[in-house]
Amino acid sequence: MNKGLIEAFTDAMVPIIVTIMVLEFKVPESADITALLHEGPYLISYMVGFLFIGVAWFNHHYMFELVKHLNLKIYWLNNVWLFTMSLIPVSAAWLGRFPTQVAPAYFYLIIFLAWTVAYYGISQALLAEIIQEQTGREHYIQSMFIYGLLKSPIFGLINILIFVAVYFWPPISITFTAVELIVVAFSIRNYNFNIQ
Amino acid sequence: MNKGLIEAFTDAMVPIIVTIMVLEFKVPESADITALLHEGPYLISYMVGFLFIGVAWFNHHYMFELVKHLNLKIYWLNNVWLFTMSLIPVSAAWLGRFPTQVAPAYFYLIIFLAWTVAYYGISQALLAEIIQEQTGREHYIQSMFIYGLLKSPIFGLINILIFVAVYFWPPISITFTAVELIVVAFSIRNYNFNIQ
Amino acid sequence: MNKGLIEAFTDAMVPIIVTIMVLEFKVPESADITALLHEGPYLISYMVGFLFIGVAWFNHHYMFELVKHLNLKIYWLNNVWLFTMSLIPVSAAWLGRFPTQVAPAYFYLIIFLAWTVAYYGISQALLAEIIQEQTGREHYIQSMFIYGLLKSPIFGLINILIFVAVYFWPPISITFTAVELIVVAFSIRNYNFNIQ
Amino acid sequence: MNKGLIEAFTDAMVPIIVTIMVLEFKVPESADITALLHEGPYLISYMVGFLFIGVAWFNHHYMFELVKHLNLKIYWLNNVWLFTMSLIPVSAAWLGRFPTQVAPAYFYLIIFLAWTVAYYGISQALLAEIIQEQTGREHYIQSMFIYGLLKSPIFGLINILIFVAVYFWPPISITFTAVELIVVAFSIRNYNFNIQ
Repeated sequence: MNKGLIEAFTDAMVPIIVTIMVLEFKVPESADITALLHEGPYLISYMVGFLFIGVAWFNHHYMFELVKHLNLKIYWLNNVWLFTMSLIPVSAAWLGRFPTQVAPAYFYLIIFLAWTVAYYGISQALLAEIIQEQTGREHYIQSMFIYGLLKSPIFGLINILIFVAVYFWPPISITFTAVELIVVAFSIRNYNFNIQ
Repeated sequence: MNKGLIEAFTDAMVPIIVTIMVLEFKVPESADITALLHEGPYLISYMVGFLFIGVAWFNHHYMFELVKHLNLKIYWLNNVWLFTMSLIPVSAAWLGRFPTQVAPAYFYLIIFLAWTVAYYGISQALLAEIIQEQTGREHYIQSMFIYGLLKSPIFGLINILIFVAVYFWPPISITFTAVELIVVAFSIRNYNFNIQ
Repeated sequence: MNKGLIEAFTDAMVPIIVTIMVLEFKVPESADITALLHEGPYLISYMVGFLFIGVAWFNHHYMFELVKHLNLKIYWLNNVWLFTMSLIPVSAAWLGRFPTQVAPAYFYLIIFLAWTVAYYGISQALLAEIIQEQTGREHYIQSMFIYGLLKSPIFGLINILIFVAVYFWPPISITFTAVELIVVAFSIRNYNFNIQ
Repeated sequence: MNKGLIEAFTDAMVPIIVTIMVLEFKVPESADITALLHEGPYLISYMVGFLFIGVAWFNHHYMFELVKHLNLKIYWLNNVWLFTMSLIPVSAAWLGRFPTQVAPAYFYLIIFLAWTVAYYGISQALLAEIIQEQTGREHYIQSMFIYGLLKSPIFGLINILIFVAVYFWPPISITFTAVELIVVAFSIRNYNFNIQ
């Protein structure tokens, strides 16, 4: 299957998803500085979303470069991944409007978890394809910090704890997301950019 | 005629159409979970639309890869196809807001039929071009499930029946679209990805 | 100057401008068919706009393929051209909302004229560059129907007449645009797609 | 690190940012010409924003062409740069709505300064990379007018003066931006487009 095709579709979707987040900024109805400050929570929400997509897109490309051909399974998982990602702007906007409420915080976390599951599914499908291609590149994915993280049962446990904690303190939802993203962002420095 | 040019235009339009669908999500005005549930029907509408465009775009590319040159007829049919596709977000949004009403269901079905006709027109024009190019690739298009489906008189008959049925049960409109898309999506596994 | 760079920017802008036009469709607030019919005038406006951008983009690419290098003059004229084009969605939306009023009709015509002037400026700058490159390709531009049209004093006269006529019958604005675009669209069949 | 990847992301983001600015035009609610004139201040704001992004994107590409490989520092600085640029539409829209007020003028200036700092950071990181690559191309960046401008202490001083002046006459914010952009735009004519 044409690898470039699917990468092109992904590359076109991702910057557009970022854009939709920008569109959620409401231009203040007054010229007062306090009117702008009301946008403060959404600014934080947007910053985390921007970091999210930057990190996600980078990891996605790094993984796709390792594989020679794509198969239909990867194609459909990639579509699911894009679908979950396309819901980030809505959840970020809702959270930005009600940063201390339970429902938006849960919605945000659920979208993030759905995205995580889709991403992990792509990782596994790519890994299976790489092993079949016998290029010996599987260790590149296996040694990615994010892959180890998603595979780890402790990470699953942490997610359950966060899920409970959101009920008591909703902002833990975006805080946890931000911390996870920053850690993953820093782990990029260990990637190998001279493959083969 | 420059084939890459028309493919690039199509590739830029298609992800943007997906985006417009995302923009139709209204960020809930309250932090209540019921406010989010109001978006439920549109979420289904969006999922079908996302599947629609994913499947359409994939089939489109598969067909275009078979041809060596494009002609003006294909160019204009492609523009008509993009035009009908650009109306999907509006019809999906209207249906998502009034999922049980007759008018939005008919509008949705009409846009889908217009798209189907445009797609079939492109198939035929590409087939004519392929035959003229004497590459012997015409059977790739002829053996596509979607091509056989659109060519079949039974499919025409089913469409007429659905058209009548919408009057009595509007949700048949999107249900029929979803079923058709899922069937076409599954048929992709029979495509030949090693052309020539 | 990097030709691909400027073409890439143009290719990214043009489909987005089409998109903005789609966003101007308002999803009907009721499930009544008459609610949809209110969108009728804008549908026509959108169709003309879609045709506009399809034709404009095609001619633009045809001309740019003829030249080997770009210069700063072409770069800035191209930016002006994109700027005028980016105002089409606003003018099309205003016209679609008030199809029989004088002010929106004049605004539409003025944007179209500004675009025409910018396009003609690009044609002339490309022609000068082609002559300097001594590839003998200048006749490709000179024999384009749209180039001859814009160069002709009769076309200037017609524009002045239309400008007066809009005052008495505003819909002449979009009618004239549509007719001009259809004529130019048909003239594409005379283009030479095997350059050199 | 894959240079094309980061350029592709940037090239996709930049035209979308321009688009968001276009979306801030409000289609007049009446067919009266005065309704359109209310959009006048935003039209100016949009023109400056369009010039901003045209100039920024051009300089960005010119600098990136000089380097052979990118590193993580450049990647993250580029993301910060895109982030600050993505806030231009909001600040331009707020300024366009209240062109004579202090708060929108300061917000506009602050976004512009944040962008300037991010741009200067990229310049420095690229310069360090170029020096390390030993291609002898560092003088291309060092001789760019915008680089000299941002490096100059006088420019820092001017910015402080403008910052004070905005309090007394808010429109100095966009006027200063426009003047700076026009000067930088003219300086492009001194660039060397035949590198190596």
